[in-house]
Amino acid sequence: MYNLDMNKVKEIVADIVKTRTVENVAFVGCGASKSELYPAKYFLANASKKLRVAHYTANEFNCDTPDWLGANTVVITASLGGTTPETVKANGVASAAGAAVISLTHSAGSALDTSAHYSIIHGFEANYAAKLEKMGYAMALALELVQQVEGYDKYEQMLAGFDKIFEVCENAARSARKAAKKFAEQYKDAPVVYVMSSGASAEVAYSSSICLMMEMQWINSGSFHAGEFFHGPFEIVEKDVPFILLMNDGKTRPIDSRALDFLQRFDALTTVVDAKDYGLANAASGGVITYFNPLMHTAVFRVFAEELSFIRQHPLTKRRYMWKIEY
Amino acid sequence: MYNLDMNKVKEIVADIVKTRTVENVAFVGCGASKSELYPAKYFLANASKKLRVAHYTANEFNCDTPDWLGANTVVITASLGGTTPETVKANGVASAAGAAVISLTHSAGSALDTSAHYSIIHGFEANYAAKLEKMGYAMALALELVQQVEGYDKYEQMLAGFDKIFEVCENAARSARKAAKKFAEQYKDAPVVYVMSSGASAEVAYSSSICLMMEMQWINSGSFHAGEFFHGPFEIVEKDVPFILLMNDGKTRPIDSRALDFLQRFDALTTVVDAKDYGLANAASGGVITYFNPLMHTAVFRVFAEELSFIRQHPLTKRRYMWKIEY
Repeated sequence: MYNLDMNKVKEIVADIVKTRTVENVAFVGCGASKSELYPAKYFLANASKKLRVAHYTANEFNCDTPDWLGANTVVITASLGGTTPETVKANGVASAAGAAVISLTHSAGSALDTSAHYSIIHGFEANYAAKLEKMGYAMALALELVQQVEGYDKYEQMLAGFDKIFEVCENAARSARKAAKKFAEQYKDAPVVYVMSSGASAEVAYSSSICLMMEMQWINSGSFHAGEFFHGPFEIVEKDVPFILLMNDGKTRPIDSRALDFLQRFDALTTVVDAKDYGLANAASGGVITYFNPLMHTAVFRVFAEELSFIRQHPLTKRRYMWKIEY
Repeated sequence: MYNLDMNKVKEIVADIVKTRTVENVAFVGCGASKSELYPAKYFLANASKKLRVAHYTANEFNCDTPDWLGANTVVITASLGGTTPETVKANGVASAAGAAVISLTHSAGSALDTSAHYSIIHGFEANYAAKLEKMGYAMALALELVQQVEGYDKYEQMLAGFDKIFEVCENAARSARKAAKKFAEQYKDAPVVYVMSSGASAEVAYSSSICLMMEMQWINSGSFHAGEFFHGPFEIVEKDVPFILLMNDGKTRPIDSRALDFLQRFDALTTVVDAKDYGLANAASGGVITYFNPLMHTAVFRVFAEELSFIRQHPLTKRRYMWKIEY
C-alpha cells in the first residue's frame, strides 16, 4: 500500500542506460509539479559525481532550450492531470532533440503520458502518502540513474528509506490535526504569510507559498530559503508577522535553527513543522535523512492547509481563473 | 570607464585551466550577491556542453557540501563588503576540498579577498554601471571558463556585448527617472508588492523582492518566475494588486508577455521595466541578448527603488537589525 513500484523504476532506467550514455538529467514541470521534482534534483546534483543536472519551469525549457539537450539527456517531466500545456510541449521539445523522456502523472492516457517514452502513473487521492508518490518517483528515478550510471555508495540506505518513508509520512500527517487546527486559528486573518525551509525542502516552502497560500487560499505570501533569511527578508520581522518554518532533520538543520532563533527572539508569529518532531528518523538513516525531508513536510503541511481552508470556509479547490477562463 | 578588466578575467581562468581539468563550477553567495551570480550560472548551465554548474546560498554549500567538490571544481564567491561570514566560510570549505576559489568583492583586503586564490575587486559607488560590475565579472568568468575549457561559438558576440552593455545600462538608468517617479507615487502605500521575471533575470526579480522591497523598504513582497505565474500565483490577481514585471528582450520574452497580458486584462497595478524599451539591443546581438537582461534590469530598477525610498522618506540604507545587533 505504501510503496513505490521500484521494479518499474529500475526497469525504465536500465532500458535507457542500455542504449545511451547518460550525461545530463533535466527535471521539467510547472508550479507544484516543478517543486515536487526539486528533491530529486537536489539529491542528484549533490550525490552524482558525473551527471549534469538541471531543473526548469517548463516554459523556460521550451523557450530557451539548453544547448546540450540531445541523445545523452534524460528529461523527467511531471503533471498531476497530465494536461499542463507547457509540460506536454516540453515532452515534444525533448523528444525532438533526441532525449529520453520519462513522465510522471496521475492520469493514464493523458497527453503527458502518451507523449513520453516511459511513464509512471502515480497515486493521489487515496491518502496523504499517495500525494507524495510523484515526488517519490522522481527521487527514485534520480537514485537509479546515479546508481546505474556511476554507482552510489548510499544506494542501500536510500532504498531502505523508500521502504519506510511513505508509511511514516502517512502516520505523521494523521497525527498533525491538532497542531494544524491551532495554526489555522492563528493564521486565518493573516494579511501575508511567509514560508521558509532549506536543503531538499526549499521548494516545499516555495510551493506552500505559491500554491497552498496564494492559489488555493488567496492569501498574500512570499517564500525564500532559510539561509537567505538573514540577507534581506529578516528586516520585515516585527512582532506578530506570520512565518511558517519547515525545519529539516539532517545537514541543513543549523540553517533552520538559526532562523527559528531569530523569529522567536523578535516575537514573529511562528509555526514550525519540524521533520524531527514528526519522526523522520524512523524512516531514514543519518547518511541520507537530508533527502527525505520534503516528503515529510509535504505530507504534514497538507493537513495544515486543509485546516486553514476549513476555518476560512475557502475550499482548497476554489479558483478565480484556473478551470474557468482561457489564459 | 565602463568596461570590465577582461584581461584579468582571462588570466585568472588561463591560470586555473593550466593546472586543472575543470569539471565543475559552483557559484556561492548570499542574498543580493547570490542573485548577482545567477546570470553567470544561467549562462554557463545553458551554454556549456561539458561543465557541471551549481548555485548555492553559502550556508547550504557549507552545511551540505556537495559530494563532488574537489580539485576539478572552480568555486566563484561574491560579497560586496567581503565580510559576509557564510561566504567567507565557503571560501574555506572550497579551499579545504582542493577547489580553486575566485572571489568578487568591492573591498580589497577583506576576509573574502584574502581567503580566495584569485580575487577581482569591483566598483560600486561611482554610478549605476559600477553597481553592475559584480554581476558582470561573474558572467565574464563564466564566459572565459566555457571558452577556455571547451570553446564557445558565440564567444565573440558575448565579448562585443560586454564592450557596450555598461554604458548602455548607465544611460538607461539615467533615462528612467520619470518612470521611476510615477512608480513611486503609485506604489508608496502598497501593502504588498510582487516581482516577476524570467530567464537570466529570474533572480533580479528575487533580489528586487527580498532586498529592495523587504530589506530596504520593509514592504511585504513575494517573487516568482513569470513562467510559474500561471501555476499558482496568478490567483492572487485582482484589480489594483501591485506587480512589477521585469520584461526580457530575448528568448524568454513570450513568457513575460503572457504574464503582462493577464495582469492588464484583470487590472492589476502593473509596472513594467522592459529591457527592450531601454535599448538592450544596442548592447547585445540577438544570439546572446538573452544573457544581458539582468544587467539592464538591475541598473534601471535601482532608480525605481531610489524614488520609492525618497517618496516614502525611508532611506535604502535604513535597517532594523543589520549592522545593529548580533544574529
